Amino acid sequence: MSSTFNEFYNEKTGLTIGVNGILFSEQTPYQKVEILETDSWGRMMTIDGMVMLSEKDEFVYHEMLTHVGMFSHPQPERVLIIGGGDGGTAREVMRHPSVKKVDMVEIDEVVVQASKEFLPQVGDWGNPKLNVVIGDGIEFVKDISVPYDVIIIDGSDPVGPAAGLFEGEFMQACYDGLSEDGILTAQTESPWVESYHPSMKQVYTALDDIYAVSKMYLAYIPLYPAGMWSFSFASKGGTDPLAEVVLQRVENGVMRFEDELKYYNPEVHRGCFALPNFVKDIIEP
Amino acid sequence: MSSTFNEFYNEKTGLTIGVNGILFSEQTPYQKVEILETDSWGRMMTIDGMVMLSEKDEFVYHEMLTHVGMFSHPQPERVLIIGGGDGGTAREVMRHPSVKKVDMVEIDEVVVQASKEFLPQVGDWGNPKLNVVIGDGIEFVKDISVPYDVIIIDGSDPVGPAAGLFEGEFMQACYDGLSEDGILTAQTESPWVESYHPSMKQVYTALDDIYAVSKMYLAYIPLYPAGMWSFSFASKGGTDPLAEVVLQRVENGVMRFEDELKYYNPEVHRGCFALPNFVKDIIEP
Repeated sequence: MSSTFNEFYNEKTGLTIGVNGILFSEQTPYQKVEILETDSWGRMMTIDGMVMLSEKDEFVYHEMLTHVGMFSHPQPERVLIIGGGDGGTAREVMRHPSVKKVDMVEIDEVVVQASKEFLPQVGDWGNPKLNVVIGDGIEFVKDISVPYDVIIIDGSDPVGPAAGLFEGEFMQACYDGLSEDGILTAQTESPWVESYHPSMKQVYTALDDIYAVSKMYLAYIPLYPAGMWSFSFASKGGTDPLAEVVLQRVENGVMRFEDELKYYNPEVHRGCFALPNFVKDIIEP
Repeated sequence: MSSTFNEFYNEKTGLTIGVNGILFSEQTPYQKVEILETDSWGRMMTIDGMVMLSEKDEFVYHEMLTHVGMFSHPQPERVLIIGGGDGGTAREVMRHPSVKKVDMVEIDEVVVQASKEFLPQVGDWGNPKLNVVIGDGIEFVKDISVPYDVIIIDGSDPVGPAAGLFEGEFMQACYDGLSEDGILTAQTESPWVESYHPSMKQVYTALDDIYAVSKMYLAYIPLYPAGMWSFSFASKGGTDPLAEVVLQRVENGVMRFEDELKYYNPEVHRGCFALPNFVKDIIEP
């Protein structure tokens, strides 16, 4: 069977990908989860018709969502991932030798099951440091008893179950659940998609209000709208991700697993915080 | 009339844009030139079915192709543009007050005519510093008598009339036509498009052989394949675009016209040279 996948990111602009077959399709209580077989990108997961990842490009999103924040912390031991049911973010987190425990809170069990079955190499599911919780991340962060060193928000777009992840109340609960020098990173949509600008503005205003340091950074993701994706970095204790001590930690730390990285490196860590003027305009007060 | 424009950048992956009308369409001796009216991106020029620019996103390409090189030269007075028939690169070049003369050599007169008629605000056509030559850029650079401070290669993809722009012989002729501290910049395709990797490798190998300094840099262009575009920087005299003297010149120089820039700024100048690992692998020996 051969067909075409289309995702439109504004009324009239979209991505078209040739599809050889649908390996999995299920309407869950939360969303429609599908795994498609493509020629050009390997297997691809979509949620409600939006590309979440493909085998060929997932490294960009997962490396960039993870390492920028992880290296900004001096010794991340306890890490919380909200969402991330495909397992890729946890895989990158667990490359850091200091990590002792990763709690991953995914709302939709079907995402985890489909990922384990059809995208098994994306996750590091057998790693004993990983604890998968099926539940609502927004509720989970309200009841954190032992604080986390790093919290990573790996949710989908600000429509449907992930909408709450873009609200100030959630960002405050994450702050309360972080250790004193804790770091938060989150995916925050494409600057080229105007309909998401209000959500982006909302997130960055909240982070700026709540955290000692907050910044946006960018990465090139070919299967996400317009190929440009934004992420937020926020630090409770005031760590600047571009401080000399952090850059030195990146230089030294990356050597431990640089052969496994296809995107992130010390220059990318520095360079990704450079924002074009039109991007600054979206989030600046 | 409403229809759909499709450009596929590999066998099975493409961009889809809703089109309201075709304002201009002509098969020239070199290529098929079209101007389409779109809802989301304003007017759009395509050549042989590939997007060259839209009114809404052209600032990225033109600012990044121009200012990274222009600011790396201490006093650019004479500038040569090969291609660039839409006028956008010349417009950005002429923002620099040191510029006295810009020669723009476009092979296809129809590109210039259609741009003047349908995309008049892209060019600064009335500027007396601009000299438009209709001719073959590859031949033009063989006969440069007065050297240029900056040469900018603003051609289309390495198929059709622009193929020669990716060859070592052409890069050598540009070198010979530059002043002692001359700078070259060129567009060099998307790192995500595997079919262009041999052309990219060829260009960077040639630049590395011929010029004292050569580097790749990147920009986010939403309507180009995968949204990630590469450019080359090369310096005859050994200027490093990240040298302190250049960064200081960017800081000071950009203030003269920063309100007119929607992408380029000092942080972007520094950050755009950060290459993800998979991009380095394409061009490294």
